Formats: sequence, C-alpha cells, structure tokens
Amino acid sequence: MVSKSQISFLKSLQQKKHRKEHGLFLVEGLKSVTDFLQSDFYTIKTVYHTPLSEPKMLKVSGNIKFQEVSAAELEKISSLNTPQEVIAVVEVPGLPELKTQQLAGKFTLLLDGVQDPGNLGTIIRTADWFGISNIICSEDTVDVYNPKVVQATMGSLSRIAVHYTNMLLLLAKNTLPVFGAMLNGENIYQTDFGTEGLIVLGNEGKGIRPEIQQLVQKNITIPQSGKAESLNVAIAAAIFCNEISRNRLK
Amino acid sequence: MVSKSQISFLKSLQQKKHRKEHGLFLVEGLKSVTDFLQSDFYTIKTVYHTPLSEPKMLKVSGNIKFQEVSAAELEKISSLNTPQEVIAVVEVPGLPELKTQQLAGKFTLLLDGVQDPGNLGTIIRTADWFGISNIICSEDTVDVYNPKVVQATMGSLSRIAVHYTNMLLLLAKNTLPVFGAMLNGENIYQTDFGTEGLIVLGNEGKGIRPEIQQLVQKNITIPQSGKAESLNVAIAAAIFCNEISRNRLK
Repeated sequence: MVSKSQISFLKSLQQKKHRKEHGLFLVEGLKSVTDFLQSDFYTIKTVYHTPLSEPKMLKVSGNIKFQEVSAAELEKISSLNTPQEVIAVVEVPGLPELKTQQLAGKFTLLLDGVQDPGNLGTIIRTADWFGISNIICSEDTVDVYNPKVVQATMGSLSRIAVHYTNMLLLLAKNTLPVFGAMLNGENIYQTDFGTEGLIVLGNEGKGIRPEIQQLVQKNITIPQSGKAESLNVAIAAAIFCNEISRNRLK
Repeated sequence: MVSKSQISFLKSLQQKKHRKEHGLFLVEGLKSVTDFLQSDFYTIKTVYHTPLSEPKMLKVSGNIKFQEVSAAELEKISSLNTPQEVIAVVEVPGLPELKTQQLAGKFTLLLDGVQDPGNLGTIIRTADWFGISNIICSEDTVDVYNPKVVQATMGSLSRIAVHYTNMLLLLAKNTLPVFGAMLNGENIYQTDFGTEGLIVLGNEGKGIRPEIQQLVQKNITIPQSGKAESLNVAIAAAIFCNEISRNRLK
C-alpha cells in the first residue's frame, strides 16, 4: 500500500525537472527491473511490485526496499498504457566526466540533438546488441531517463553508460577518428573504420549541426537505391554499428 | 471552412473500422501530401490546407478537391500533437492479389504480425531508401493506414505497395528463396542472398510464428556481440535490407 503523496511523488518522476531535482527515475516491467538489479552502475532504491509478481522477483542483497502494491496502485504510478507488474525507482548515476582517450580501442556513438525518445531508446538497445558500451549525447539530446526512452531500451540502459556533454568541447580535445553519418559522404560499404572511433549521428530533421560537422573527419553515407529522402536516425545508427561489427564477426 | 459533421467524419478515419468502411485514410504534412500527389497507385480525393500553405501546394491536375481551412479547423482534424498545414484524404488502393512469381528477380519483405505502428512505418521508410518496392503483411499486422504508421513512413508509403494476405497460403505456393530473421540461424555476414527472395520478419515479442517458420528455408541471424536479448524488428529489417544492398553497391 502506498500513500497518495507517494503516488504523486512517483508520478512526478515522469517529468524531467522532477527527475533532475531528486536524481531519480523509474524503470517499468519485470525484465527491465531485473536487468537494472544486475547493473554495474545503477543503484535501485525501491521496487514496487504486485503480489502476483513477487515470486518472480530477483531479490538481490543490498539496501533495496521491496514494497508490495495493488495492481490499481501500480497503474496510477505507471507511465505505460498497459502497466506491467513491477516499477523500480532508480538513482541517476553520477557518471565521471568522460575524455575521449578513455574510448581508445573501441567505437562510441555520439548523438547530436536526437529528440525522439523512441529513437534514443532504440539506439541504446541496438548499441547493447552490438557491444558498444558508451553513448555520448549533446546537452540538447532528449533526456535518457524519460520513461519512453527507458521503455524502448528494453533493459539495455542498465548496461550502457549514457553521457551528456558539450560535444564541441569534447571533440576539440579528441584524438580518435571521427566519422559522421551524412548524406553526401563516402560509401559506407567502402569505408575502413579501423579499430576505434567516434560515430556522430545528428538530429532527426536537421542532421549534424554545422559546428560539429567541421570536426567530423570522414563523412560517411549509406548508399540509397530507392527514393526516401533520408533514413530514421536509429536505423542509420544500427547500420553503422552493423558495418563495424561485420568487420570483426564475418 | 468545414462543417462540424465533416470534421467528425475526418476524425473518424483515425480508427480502422471507419477507414475500412469508407476506404479512405488521412495523410498529414506538406512533404507527405506532395509525395502522395505524385504517387503511382494512390488517389487523393481532397486536400485540406491552411491559407498559409496554399502557395506551397503542388496543384496537379485531376479530380482532386482543394479546400482551404483555418489552422484551428485543421487542428481538430489532425491526429498529430503538432498539426502541420496540410491534410489529404486518400483512397485505400485496391491492390491486385499478389503471387510471389511477380516478385521474381527482387527482394521483398514479409512481416508476420508486426504490431507497433512506428515499427511498420519505419520499415516502409527503410524499404523505400533501399529500393524495395513491395511489403507483404500477415493479416494480423497493424493496419498500414493507421495515422501513426503513415506519419512514420515520412511519405515513403506513397511509393511502396503494402499487401495484406494469408502468409501461409502465399508461402505454400511460393517458388522464391525464403529467408527468416531468427536468433539461432546462419551468420548474416556469411549469407549469400543471391538475387531474389522473401525476407520474413516476425512479431515484436514472439518472432515468426511456428507454422511460418516451417516454410522458411534459411534461418539468418545478425551476430550479437553485446548483451541485448533481441533487436527491434525495424532495426533487424534495416540490417537485412543493408546486407542485400551492400552486395550490389559496394
């Protein structure tokens, strides 16, 4: 049983300003919550679950509080149209400031102003499939703790470090190769990505902003044989991840 | 100026049963409507536009009715949170029944029970980028004329024929190679797709249904190097399109 004020507090975490104020966000669904319970860098504070879901819950040790609620109460807290049986309150991690030197020897995605929560969530899930462990977002990219983003990652957010930073400053100090997803670049099928680098993907409507474009060393294009004007940014990100992956796994 | 009853009729087209009853659906936004005006197999009946958007409209000949409405009226008809300046009423095309023989010499996507409108829309947009001109959906796949699907295609629906059919019957009579996106198949980076075939992609949660799996000749897997349980179906579709495309364009 949860109080009215608890419910309204939990609901408030659907909004960015309240997540920022309290340093907390919500994760919904048994699969995702289980992933976060096993995460290396996320700390769960409380797990709200229905009586039905209790036997399925992985009760790891630590200071996590488990609280039983009714299905009706859970529905009030949930941001989903079809609420699931479990909701966790998770701490926003204080990730240390990232320098691109730490990213040597691997590939990292840089998102310049991605706005759609579903796109960001799908990019995180895709990165997790392809073994990419860091994503760096410009400060105006949609908040990764937005419930729609968390949902679209299907638990993958628990394994991927998502950093927000001033991308211009980061790239100015960078020594790794910088590739950009553009419409007028080199054929991706002929690109040698080497063994490390930063892959920059831009905003859904405007692409990569001009100041950032100037710091991209190689413009790469996914060849088009049909008539669509552009690809969705999550699709473009996946094709870049796939091309890098096929070099290692074919 | 539109009447109240016209507005409520147009709004009703957001629901499948009314689209089916009237054989009509809505397309929103100047870019998409322009694409549909140039389409080979869609017929536009009426274009509703604000005074602002009139100078930008491509007024092709034919029996299309152009009707000016206020921004407030357009907002009432729109299914979007941020309505655009133009909405067209388009006829659901009576596509002739498809036999797979007609698909010889090319690749076609088969969607077995895809449920999310954003996924279907993104798959259509991606197919259009890669020059795939037909998509075949099982009868329980989400309706392609759902406003969220139409929106996510970004105009590409105007160029892609989307067929609904009994997939079991279609595959039973088929003579083309059938590839399926599965989790336990052959490495896609080592797959020879040849020059034609059907690519089957399954439902978001359940994958390809067992009866259809039995008609798949080659199970293909996108190699995983991270920890995500699966890829989003639109991402998987894009990677299949990309792999087929790179054989031709590298």
